[in-house]
Amino acid sequence: MGRPLLLLGIDGGGTACRARLTDIDGNVRGEGAAGPANIRFGLKESFEAALQATSQALEQSGLALGDVDIVACLALAGASEPTNLAAARAVDLPFRHALITTDAHAACVGAHGSKDGGIIVIGTGSVGWAVVGDNEYRVGGWGFPVSDEGSGAWLGSEAARRALWAYDGRAPWSELLTAIFDRFNDDPHAIVRWMGEARPRDFAALAPLVLGAASRGDPVAGELAGLAAAHIDVIADRLVSYGATRLALAGGIAASIEPWLTAATRQHLVEAEGDALSGALKMARTEVEARVATDSFEVQH
Amino acid sequence: MGRPLLLLGIDGGGTACRARLTDIDGNVRGEGAAGPANIRFGLKESFEAALQATSQALEQSGLALGDVDIVACLALAGASEPTNLAAARAVDLPFRHALITTDAHAACVGAHGSKDGGIIVIGTGSVGWAVVGDNEYRVGGWGFPVSDEGSGAWLGSEAARRALWAYDGRAPWSELLTAIFDRFNDDPHAIVRWMGEARPRDFAALAPLVLGAASRGDPVAGELAGLAAAHIDVIADRLVSYGATRLALAGGIAASIEPWLTAATRQHLVEAEGDALSGALKMARTEVEARVATDSFEVQH
Repeated sequence: MGRPLLLLGIDGGGTACRARLTDIDGNVRGEGAAGPANIRFGLKESFEAALQATSQALEQSGLALGDVDIVACLALAGASEPTNLAAARAVDLPFRHALITTDAHAACVGAHGSKDGGIIVIGTGSVGWAVVGDNEYRVGGWGFPVSDEGSGAWLGSEAARRALWAYDGRAPWSELLTAIFDRFNDDPHAIVRWMGEARPRDFAALAPLVLGAASRGDPVAGELAGLAAAHIDVIADRLVSYGATRLALAGGIAASIEPWLTAATRQHLVEAEGDALSGALKMARTEVEARVATDSFEVQH
Repeated sequence: MGRPLLLLGIDGGGTACRARLTDIDGNVRGEGAAGPANIRFGLKESFEAALQATSQALEQSGLALGDVDIVACLALAGASEPTNLAAARAVDLPFRHALITTDAHAACVGAHGSKDGGIIVIGTGSVGWAVVGDNEYRVGGWGFPVSDEGSGAWLGSEAARRALWAYDGRAPWSELLTAIFDRFNDDPHAIVRWMGEARPRDFAALAPLVLGAASRGDPVAGELAGLAAAHIDVIADRLVSYGATRLALAGGIAASIEPWLTAATRQHLVEAEGDALSGALKMARTEVEARVATDSFEVQH
């Protein structure tokens, strides 16, 4: 008798990584979480985080790696870059099979199941993804600071920049900008040094401050929220033009950005059926189903 | 008898560094040029470039370092950051005296002599500087990509970003964007990789392409030139508010940006009397005059 088969889903983003282990019927056996897994910023760090989250999930399940066959889908930020993706696929993993895809793709599959649809992830980074028939479409999400417009990192970075503008007298102060300046002991050079070293998640850590101030009517924060939403509207419009008329939002700041979107975007919004983790698990299950004819899995229900 | 006294001016920017050696009466004895000297991006590299340019100037003059007393003013990009400035001042230099200031300050002194006025440098980076009475004012110029809005680096980076937008279908293509995409063999990932590694001068190398396309009516290039000019207008407005009603422009792309500025900015524009190099030499001469009572210079006319 072979070893029992488990499905593993990994959702790796710019700020954190989550793992979930289920049996073939979707019963959760264990979950785990670890640090960021954006392979654009470190392949080694990302896979360490993914395996650490997996170990936690296995521990919860009461099983050891050697006792089970795992079919995994790792959905990782940064995997849309071909060089990164190839490097990730070359990593030797302790699983029976491992798919590697982008976090956006898994989020799209999670949101719409087997139906056509699009997703816009607005978290540390931002990206649009659609599955329409047999085609996949990606819009934006080239990574911060090149792209990821409207994301948490984008918002935090723009807010810090405007604090410097206010210090220069190039723009008026606001409650938000004063709060940011306070964080750096009123030293513009400290802001500049921080911005020179900050990673996307460091910038994104300012986003809740911006969005909170925006909801309280801070004019600078409101302008930034509006600009972020305008970038998301453009992504939405492009996804719709590909035929993805049902759009779901995902990611840490999606709910706070949603009220700032245009009516044209909002009319396409639907609730996601599931998240990127459930999408990754669905893709792992599809992989099992595709291989079950040729591969001798021990599928226990 | 002491050694003859020479003045040395150094103008160090993000793309190149120039040196000029004169006698106390301003007669040029030699000139030199070398690579970038922005101390924000490398103190060692900057001083190597400055000394290399100095060696060329000395060679032209037919004098050796050991035969002359040099009073130098090194005007270096990045020197407005206190940590950088302190590190630069701690460097041991083979001169009798050496002042270190920012390239913007020297450009301002060069442009207006001893009169009040402001300068806006629009080259690889951008910065505004004013001298009004005994006060100096600085606006912007926190370094790219944090700041330096409207600069060559800013223009090149925004243009590359818009090529990705066009590829995504988030914005229309234009002649400019097609030309940029061509440079990267139509590979968006190549643009993203390049943007992740490019230094300010690499981005700024795209600026002439943008400004040329703008002058030919390319809509994207025109929008970018307008946005760049709007950032410069804001800097100009702030300098005027400090009392610098006479503004000069300097830097490699200033002449191409000038037509895009508002009438409100343009009414304050005056021709610069001299450049940053002449400003640095003027500051070196002032230093000699301040020290001549207490310091035994051998001033030869």
